[in-house]
Amino acid sequence: MGLSKENLKGLILALVSSGFIGASFIIKKQGLRRAAAVSGVRAGVGGYYYLLEPLWWVGMITMIVGEVANFVAYAFAPAVLVTPLGALSIIVSAVLADIILKEKLHNLGILGCIMCIAGSVIIVIHAPKEQPINSVLEIMHMATQPAFLAYVGSVIVLVFILVFHFAPRCGHTNVLVFTGICSLMGSLSVMSVKALGTSLKLTFEGKNQLIYPETWFFMLVVAICVIMQMNYLNKALDTFNTAIVSPIYYVMFTTLTILASVIMFKDWDGQSGGTIVSEICGFIVVLSGTIMLHATKDLERSSSFRGSGPSSPSLSARLYTGNGDMLLKQDEENVSPSESNMCSRRQELY
Amino acid sequence: MGLSKENLKGLILALVSSGFIGASFIIKKQGLRRAAAVSGVRAGVGGYYYLLEPLWWVGMITMIVGEVANFVAYAFAPAVLVTPLGALSIIVSAVLADIILKEKLHNLGILGCIMCIAGSVIIVIHAPKEQPINSVLEIMHMATQPAFLAYVGSVIVLVFILVFHFAPRCGHTNVLVFTGICSLMGSLSVMSVKALGTSLKLTFEGKNQLIYPETWFFMLVVAICVIMQMNYLNKALDTFNTAIVSPIYYVMFTTLTILASVIMFKDWDGQSGGTIVSEICGFIVVLSGTIMLHATKDLERSSSFRGSGPSSPSLSARLYTGNGDMLLKQDEENVSPSESNMCSRRQELY
Repeated sequence: MGLSKENLKGLILALVSSGFIGASFIIKKQGLRRAAAVSGVRAGVGGYYYLLEPLWWVGMITMIVGEVANFVAYAFAPAVLVTPLGALSIIVSAVLADIILKEKLHNLGILGCIMCIAGSVIIVIHAPKEQPINSVLEIMHMATQPAFLAYVGSVIVLVFILVFHFAPRCGHTNVLVFTGICSLMGSLSVMSVKALGTSLKLTFEGKNQLIYPETWFFMLVVAICVIMQMNYLNKALDTFNTAIVSPIYYVMFTTLTILASVIMFKDWDGQSGGTIVSEICGFIVVLSGTIMLHATKDLERSSSFRGSGPSSPSLSARLYTGNGDMLLKQDEENVSPSESNMCSRRQELY
Repeated sequence: MGLSKENLKGLILALVSSGFIGASFIIKKQGLRRAAAVSGVRAGVGGYYYLLEPLWWVGMITMIVGEVANFVAYAFAPAVLVTPLGALSIIVSAVLADIILKEKLHNLGILGCIMCIAGSVIIVIHAPKEQPINSVLEIMHMATQPAFLAYVGSVIVLVFILVFHFAPRCGHTNVLVFTGICSLMGSLSVMSVKALGTSLKLTFEGKNQLIYPETWFFMLVVAICVIMQMNYLNKALDTFNTAIVSPIYYVMFTTLTILASVIMFKDWDGQSGGTIVSEICGFIVVLSGTIMLHATKDLERSSSFRGSGPSSPSLSARLYTGNGDMLLKQDEENVSPSESNMCSRRQELY
């Protein structure tokens, strides 16, 4: 209980990150609307005029700033604290959409926001203190402890089974296959991002970690995990509706990340049973709030569809198939009001 | 943190109470269905055959046992712990309705249940310890401290204003008038019930408190408050739809009760800021879960109305006007699936 100075820094960074990422969707959408108004062509139907719209680029930069803040947050606070707070970007974007874009939030959606905030407060209050780390070698030691190696081994085996056995057979009928692969890889992404972030933090503090091959190893792992996670997230989003993929992915990804962090960084060691249970309850509350926000967005959407956003998910998915331009896809999806929040998930690969 | 022995007793009693009260609605409804099947006349349209149905009486007795357990729970644990747990009776009845009566629970309703449970766990973990009380005189001392007298004074003034100024003018157009009166009185009911319960507990333990006029004074206060609360709750339910009254009443009543308890019993003294904030968050989560359960019950009801229950709320409200038979009204209302849970609130006057 009580926030340490490091945790406080991580918390502020995580909140700033959620604010920027949440706002970026709204700014980008405003930019797309303006571009559509000027050109008469919507992004979803093939127009690229938004690339000439400064507001769209402001949104892009806002998003990148948010992502960087998120990355740095992991260097200061435990993943158990930073990861669930990612849900707050959904609130920021839902509230801003209500105020700026006049996309009325469903009453149950407001309740979802309140729950996400209440759950986040509980998580923050009970978050474990970040253990002081002095060298990347310590992180490598944590990463090679038997329990974490067993976790990594299980993840790799499961991913292999999913990729080679289930994906060809039912990857296009069962939403859990692709989503499972990217959630499993996602938990490893976050762990390696945290290792890399901490190494870079130490380097900036004057303790150069770049001399150790371990730092470069973690950089390689980050690259592999993030690319694989992105690849399968895109497959999941191409195959299934974002409204189905996003909540499932968020739940699985956050749960596995917390599990990985608890095993690797022993976040729960020295915490009382009550504190751990409170943390888990806070996490469940945030998850419920997120699911509710998604579910009620759909309610509103189906009851009063707004035609202002360019594309439907299936349309953007079709446009995207076989096209490696990640930014373009995000952009087209973020345009639709119910999509904008969900897509924040895919940004939060780590 | 950590449950004291007294708190544990209070917690178990509160859980048992919620179980019994929640189950009683389902049993009574089963009884009503059987009675309707045998007689061909439904309670909602004036039949009283259910009084011959043993199952209905089993339900009645179950409810009374639940109410008694709830009353006793207040003698052991702080109101801050017992009152919010009342929401669990809603879950019990929703889950039993799903299993026994095959009234399918909406997906968001399941989420509401999960949230009520998560919130309750957080409240239980952070609940303050019950202060040891040795005599009704101590309770009287707490009840006459300036801060609590100021609270009681404000409540009485507010109730007077509501009853004599607002009730005649907008009592039948604004749902907050009647609901406000019974929530304000409800907070005093719980405080006096707790005083009386503790006195009776002490008496059973061998320290006779019936020799003090204070005990009899509290008994009088209980009677006045509960009658007034019931009277205005009935007015609220007669005038407005139960689906509107119940969540508003639950939120106001529980909030005011916690406020009263914190002032009178100083529940939060000696608790850390983090613990108090966690408790409040837990409470907000339970409230959100309750509101959600109510809201989604309506969703389901409007989309697939089940004709098996006798009466609609407006019908039972009309039947009830000018009729003092509280039990009859409850019974008719509880018959409708979406009503059954909400009515548990009115049982929980204290």
